[in-house]
Amino acid sequence: MKTRELKPWQILESREVFQAPPWIRVSRQKIRLPDGRIINDYHQIRLSDFALIVASTSDGRILVERQYRHGLGRVTILLPAGTLNEGEDALAAAKRELREEAGYDSDDWSFLGRFVASASYGCGNMSLFTAKNIRKVCEPDGADLEEIEILLLTPAELQAAIRRGEMPTLSSVTAFALATHPEIFPANLQKP
Amino acid sequence: MKTRELKPWQILESREVFQAPPWIRVSRQKIRLPDGRIINDYHQIRLSDFALIVASTSDGRILVERQYRHGLGRVTILLPAGTLNEGEDALAAAKRELREEAGYDSDDWSFLGRFVASASYGCGNMSLFTAKNIRKVCEPDGADLEEIEILLLTPAELQAAIRRGEMPTLSSVTAFALATHPEIFPANLQKP
Repeated sequence: MKTRELKPWQILESREVFQAPPWIRVSRQKIRLPDGRIINDYHQIRLSDFALIVASTSDGRILVERQYRHGLGRVTILLPAGTLNEGEDALAAAKRELREEAGYDSDDWSFLGRFVASASYGCGNMSLFTAKNIRKVCEPDGADLEEIEILLLTPAELQAAIRRGEMPTLSSVTAFALATHPEIFPANLQKP
Repeated sequence: MKTRELKPWQILESREVFQAPPWIRVSRQKIRLPDGRIINDYHQIRLSDFALIVASTSDGRILVERQYRHGLGRVTILLPAGTLNEGEDALAAAKRELREEAGYDSDDWSFLGRFVASASYGCGNMSLFTAKNIRKVCEPDGADLEEIEILLLTPAELQAAIRRGEMPTLSSVTAFALATHPEIFPANLQKP
């Protein structure tokens, strides 16, 4: 890959213009571009970081959550995920969410990578994990706002659901694609 | 797949609490959950919809853009993408962006699907396209804030870049995975 020099932007001022703690913080920045131009209103949006889990049983079924999600405005299936609590590391959050939302645990966790929601605004980071040989250990705690139905789908069933538009989020589709296609992203290449 | 009844949330009130037109609108909603609980401060974030293109040459190289992006805070590679202008359809935006940002055109476009950035907040929709047998037709117009270096990578080179963390956005990784793995998402199953 070529390595033409590309310089970062310089932040001249940054002012928080909206907050809904602990979920959302929007800042307006005054930026100097490398060519000298000044941009007075470039925004950055800070949302909570979250962990997302591709959790599979010993016979290869993948755990999905069927639920109404308000950002989608309809009932869909999604992979289990949750925001990191203050000071919590991503793997601990993944383990906690899989247990709280679904009632499952695993002794075989791998980290697949960390991804950003928006190249323009930020909008939070996703840490992606696989959990293999999952086992039911308790009932879901039911503490989320959403009522969740747990399903165990074969990879073929989940692919069909994606094709039908039933798993429509970038985070869940990225996670499923990477977990099931190790030639794109072999597990354990990075540390969490 | 089971079909337990899962009810949508009911929006009792919605008030716009932040705007930076035409880019960002945040609303605060009062929600009634299906179990009767009232949530007074659930937020929705409207960001611009965008089109993203997996553009490949006749010999299978994929066009990527190397650039500094402020939401990432560093130089990375990303697939070409851009926001839809007011009233513009997604395919028209994809064609315009590929020409403006990279100087390339194609006669072989396919729609791969539409995805949402956030199941909680919304945060905009991505329409994903492939453009095959691309050809250079002009110079990039250089109108973006970012200075862009165009690279044509083999799929193996792009996979290696993803593994090294050099293409870290959910949108670009989703697009690459779906475009190169038709068993997950065969082209042209949906209409744009």
